[in-house]
Amino acid sequence: MSSIRPLFVVASVGNGTGTGAASARLFGSLGYRVALISRGPEHLNKVANEINQNGGEAASFLVSEYTPNSIRSAFSSIRSHFPASTSPLRVAVFNAGYGIWKPVEITDEEIRESLDTHVVAAFAFSREALLEFTKNEPETASEHGKGGSTKRGTLVFTGATAATRENATTSAFAAGKFGVRALSQSLAKEFGKQNIHVRSLISTIDGAIITGRTRGSRNGPTREIIADTHLHPDSIAKSYLHLVEQDSTAWSWEIDLRPAQEKW
Amino acid sequence: MSSIRPLFVVASVGNGTGTGAASARLFGSLGYRVALISRGPEHLNKVANEINQNGGEAASFLVSEYTPNSIRSAFSSIRSHFPASTSPLRVAVFNAGYGIWKPVEITDEEIRESLDTHVVAAFAFSREALLEFTKNEPETASEHGKGGSTKRGTLVFTGATAATRENATTSAFAAGKFGVRALSQSLAKEFGKQNIHVRSLISTIDGAIITGRTRGSRNGPTREIIADTHLHPDSIAKSYLHLVEQDSTAWSWEIDLRPAQEKW
Amino acid sequence: MSSIRPLFVVASVGNGTGTGAASARLFGSLGYRVALISRGPEHLNKVANEINQNGGEAASFLVSEYTPNSIRSAFSSIRSHFPASTSPLRVAVFNAGYGIWKPVEITDEEIRESLDTHVVAAFAFSREALLEFTKNEPETASEHGKGGSTKRGTLVFTGATAATRENATTSAFAAGKFGVRALSQSLAKEFGKQNIHVRSLISTIDGAIITGRTRGSRNGPTREIIADTHLHPDSIAKSYLHLVEQDSTAWSWEIDLRPAQEKW
Amino acid sequence: MSSIRPLFVVASVGNGTGTGAASARLFGSLGYRVALISRGPEHLNKVANEINQNGGEAASFLVSEYTPNSIRSAFSSIRSHFPASTSPLRVAVFNAGYGIWKPVEITDEEIRESLDTHVVAAFAFSREALLEFTKNEPETASEHGKGGSTKRGTLVFTGATAATRENATTSAFAAGKFGVRALSQSLAKEFGKQNIHVRSLISTIDGAIITGRTRGSRNGPTREIIADTHLHPDSIAKSYLHLVEQDSTAWSWEIDLRPAQEKW
Repeated sequence: MSSIRPLFVVASVGNGTGTGAASARLFGSLGYRVALISRGPEHLNKVANEINQNGGEAASFLVSEYTPNSIRSAFSSIRSHFPASTSPLRVAVFNAGYGIWKPVEITDEEIRESLDTHVVAAFAFSREALLEFTKNEPETASEHGKGGSTKRGTLVFTGATAATRENATTSAFAAGKFGVRALSQSLAKEFGKQNIHVRSLISTIDGAIITGRTRGSRNGPTREIIADTHLHPDSIAKSYLHLVEQDSTAWSWEIDLRPAQEKW
Repeated sequence: MSSIRPLFVVASVGNGTGTGAASARLFGSLGYRVALISRGPEHLNKVANEINQNGGEAASFLVSEYTPNSIRSAFSSIRSHFPASTSPLRVAVFNAGYGIWKPVEITDEEIRESLDTHVVAAFAFSREALLEFTKNEPETASEHGKGGSTKRGTLVFTGATAATRENATTSAFAAGKFGVRALSQSLAKEFGKQNIHVRSLISTIDGAIITGRTRGSRNGPTREIIADTHLHPDSIAKSYLHLVEQDSTAWSWEIDLRPAQEKW
Repeated sequence: MSSIRPLFVVASVGNGTGTGAASARLFGSLGYRVALISRGPEHLNKVANEINQNGGEAASFLVSEYTPNSIRSAFSSIRSHFPASTSPLRVAVFNAGYGIWKPVEITDEEIRESLDTHVVAAFAFSREALLEFTKNEPETASEHGKGGSTKRGTLVFTGATAATRENATTSAFAAGKFGVRALSQSLAKEFGKQNIHVRSLISTIDGAIITGRTRGSRNGPTREIIADTHLHPDSIAKSYLHLVEQDSTAWSWEIDLRPAQEKW
Repeated sequence: MSSIRPLFVVASVGNGTGTGAASARLFGSLGYRVALISRGPEHLNKVANEINQNGGEAASFLVSEYTPNSIRSAFSSIRSHFPASTSPLRVAVFNAGYGIWKPVEITDEEIRESLDTHVVAAFAFSREALLEFTKNEPETASEHGKGGSTKRGTLVFTGATAATRENATTSAFAAGKFGVRALSQSLAKEFGKQNIHVRSLISTIDGAIITGRTRGSRNGPTREIIADTHLHPDSIAKSYLHLVEQDSTAWSWEIDLRPAQEKW
């Protein structure tokens, strides 16, 4: 671990079949050190092991819930394990969140809890990542000699809540979808001038993401071919990589992904 | 030329320093055969020679103006030179257009001319490209085995007019900017279900594109370093490549590029 | 006709059951002099008679087609009939247009014709109206004493093409929808600083407008009650009136109307 | 109070010079009974007295802070004062909120507090209002005989935070702006099919609202004429009234207001 390699941090790998895990695998395979923050020890360790067995370098950081304190504590543990001097943070993905679909009987407490996870924790995560990014030098990139310099870091929010349900139009009270987009846009404007790239994934109502769960519950084990009607986590991860690779003269503003055969 | 290689067609390479030429160079360097349609023989041949000297395979197709007939005639010449059997069209970029900034005294004839180039010619170009795409098999891609299949073709509109001026807010009568976005979105919906990917570049008001002309006219020859306040054509070309590489489960909806240090 | 009263001009009253005719009736009933420009003499005269019989003051200006010359000629006739000195133009609505839904076999000529009507004619109409608006004094309005002054004029585009079909997603080649929104936004920015209010109606895909034709063809004569699933021309006209009445401190940016029971 | 008259409820009248108070005055003058919920007893009573002295019928409902419990308690007090049988709720405006502009040093607690006021309290307010709306019959409106029926109620969110600062681009951490728009859009979709109209005010970055505070602090007492470069609360209130008056065939989707002389 003495060589210098960039660090990739993701909060939440879910059950290992979604966007967070797919991103971790992709960046791990490209030479990034990978820090996985998640709540479920079993899936967390499974994803870390998988990356390590494929020649990557991943470590797990368990949290009991997504609160500002647990987020800060996780970043502190990450820095003990992957010191900043040899593992400068370059990419951070906030992917935590779960939907609440109880439009009528939702309680004040449930709303607060959802906001705590999605907005307050996202704030804390952003602050930790941005603080590290501002210490980075813009990456040296000879290929950009003619044009812009490169960036200090990339922060992506998945905004998973609204994207993982077939019909988000009933999610009037999925409190978690509040804020991620607004937070992302505010930070994008604030930190763009420091060459820090902040973006969020905006997928459409019909752009349900294929995960192990959706595959199982809807299709049964015999369905082998998935039509081009759903977003695939591996494909989303590639778009995250594209964001990271964009030089500072031309950044995508949002990641608005849709399957080819979306119903309009 | 007996081996099968994909074909890339671009309409307009301008003066060789903009998005059209940058895209041609990038796809040429990746093994695509390159057909260049443009009005200025000098720049046209210069770009073709450059690609050929770098190991690519490019040919020039001169048009006197951008009319439906000249577009169709160019496609016909392209197919004599690069037969469809060995050069299936996979990527088409419509990049023609020039701005008219005469807000007050613009004539009916100037408006019609601008619409002819930007909309009527874009229609004709689209039709030629889409007709070829529908004959393609979706590309075989083992890496997509778990998810979506791949696409038959990618059509991109640059919509250059509104993007090449510092202050588009005075372009009330830049008739050319009409339609490219609308055309793109309509075709995207129409042909998405056939796994044909149609997109347009939407750059912001401040996202002026750096070209030889802007470099020369604004900065003089001594300005070597370009701040991250303008879009760079090479960077735009990379985003076009990313579009082309997206599998059919996750397509970007529009390409909304902005420089990192955009003024908000 | 010696008293001073504001003038309302609308281009196209269709078959008398749509947005143009509804707007003419509403403004006519409020004391505006009404100039109707349209192609079908029968419907044109019917709407004019109706307004006149209800105590309004309307006149018909027949055009054979929507070209810049016929538009300019109509404005000239309007000024002979309603001199600017006693009938200052205050509201102009461009409502002309018809859809072309021949996605595959559409000819170059049909595209050009559609663009001529929708964009080139809209340009000419805008120019005539804006030229008159700039000569107006901002209206004196005692009620606005505490805040902003009032406006010189209001120009609205209906952009009918995309709004009158149940399923606009098949309108890939409805060339007419190009441009109205872009034209409107450009002019809004250009002329807002002169207190001239330019806006367009943006209705959603499902926001089909109820007209005599849709009522007849779809429902038959027995259907009396129309559910809140379609836009009603009289209701659109009221929103146009609201635009006109907004003082210059708070203008709606676009008119994005949808029926209450829109399908999402 | 025995006659039946519609009820208007607004949460927050600020210092009596902003949008909430202007709306209360307007609806009060039109025959609505007015229930004012606010935190500052002085301004609260001043606005109520003003409406009552002008022939309206207003009552004050003081809250110590904007929490779900205080909101519910205020609605309960309102119903003791204005029984539902004679004062059916028809219009509810949520206007509470204050900005936090401490981008760097903002604490977790401050974020939570802001979310509590803006999102959790807005939820509670929405629920109380919507519950009452669903009990209303759609208003009988003879003028709508040909088209749509009318609505059960209208709920508007002002989303004041982002709109009352000259430069919202520094508000990266103005946590309050999260959610109001998302909440509004979700509820709009959920309740539109019951003919309940939910909308939010979206004003632009430059669309600062003129209030007593901004007038005082920026211009001094001698500035009498306010240029058309800022939104005026009375004008916003008129747009709220327009929303309320729209029949159910044509509802504005959002209220995007800008001053005529906005800087672009």
